Amino acid sequence: MTDTSVTSPRREATRQKLLDAAALVFAEVGVDAASVEAICERAGFTRGAFYSNFETKDELMLALTERVAGEKIDEVAARVAVLQERGEDLEPGALVRRLLDVAFDEKHGILLTSEIRTRAMRDPRLARTYLAWQEGMAERVGSFIESLAETYRFRLRVPAPEFAGLIMQAWEDTAAYAMMMGMTAQESHQLVNDRTARLAAALVDPIAG
Amino acid sequence: MTDTSVTSPRREATRQKLLDAAALVFAEVGVDAASVEAICERAGFTRGAFYSNFETKDELMLALTERVAGEKIDEVAARVAVLQERGEDLEPGALVRRLLDVAFDEKHGILLTSEIRTRAMRDPRLARTYLAWQEGMAERVGSFIESLAETYRFRLRVPAPEFAGLIMQAWEDTAAYAMMMGMTAQESHQLVNDRTARLAAALVDPIAG
Repeated sequence: MTDTSVTSPRREATRQKLLDAAALVFAEVGVDAASVEAICERAGFTRGAFYSNFETKDELMLALTERVAGEKIDEVAARVAVLQERGEDLEPGALVRRLLDVAFDEKHGILLTSEIRTRAMRDPRLARTYLAWQEGMAERVGSFIESLAETYRFRLRVPAPEFAGLIMQAWEDTAAYAMMMGMTAQESHQLVNDRTARLAAALVDPIAG
Repeated sequence: MTDTSVTSPRREATRQKLLDAAALVFAEVGVDAASVEAICERAGFTRGAFYSNFETKDELMLALTERVAGEKIDEVAARVAVLQERGEDLEPGALVRRLLDVAFDEKHGILLTSEIRTRAMRDPRLARTYLAWQEGMAERVGSFIESLAETYRFRLRVPAPEFAGLIMQAWEDTAAYAMMMGMTAQESHQLVNDRTARLAAALVDPIAG
């Protein structure tokens, strides 16, 4: 196990550069064909630097997926804060549209997530890391949902973390569908927002008063 | 393209035997390591027989997934027919439990579906076949849902095919989660039923009267 609890800034910079390089190499040749060597070469590091940061290519894939997803959730968190402050009157569907209306160049992230999920189904060690990550995301998104439900006065028809899981799942599933349909980024964005907003609206009831 | 519109009984038998053999080989060595040769050898056929039925291993994987899913949906269809006939008074959650309470040895099917989905995201030809299959399933399951909603007098909060898609997605996702958690078949069955029933109940309203 690489120790991630104490990370020097320099070590962290190396890690981020390896992730940047991996994103490029994955995009160019696909995940399967991307070798650790090619990633190191692109990043300008030795294999030693790679293996002091990641045990396997799968571990790096997961770290990259976490980074992509984390950035997206940070963006959503910023929007939640703005909405909470303004206190505008919005329906749940409109709320979701406002929150999800983030830049959508996600093809790569979606493919990575799908890949890592399939691999985690075969590999118990990777499964543990994957599940911990998913759980952390569901909790974070669940807490946004709970606080929005309070501000905007609606009742959730399923518990908040499960609500979060369903929304994230619909998001991912629709993005994967759009990718298979060969949709443009804009069409894909539109469809993901429509379906997710419809699901969110179906899963809440207004609180009268 | 192999012609599937006209199929002789003998040809169909060969096809089914190849699928049986593939299921065994996939279970033994994993999908990636399973070669067309090994599948043919297990089935007792030549590679010629294989390639007159399937163009690629991916195509065979998809056919196997279709068969597994088709059997499950046939079972659900039979239960829908029985419920419609009896006309018992059941809540939506209880209804879902009754319908989904099918044999649950699905690890293999779940892994195959996940694998084929990831591959379809990279391969436009496979994507077309995969999407057509998923659409057919959503329509079939959607029509069960519509007719049950009529019999049991509840209103769907999202359109029927979308409802079907969400239920199937939750089913698959929970089964994948259970697999990663290393749950037993029974625990997995229980969890899948609980979550799916909760989602179905959240997505309907009773019709008064």
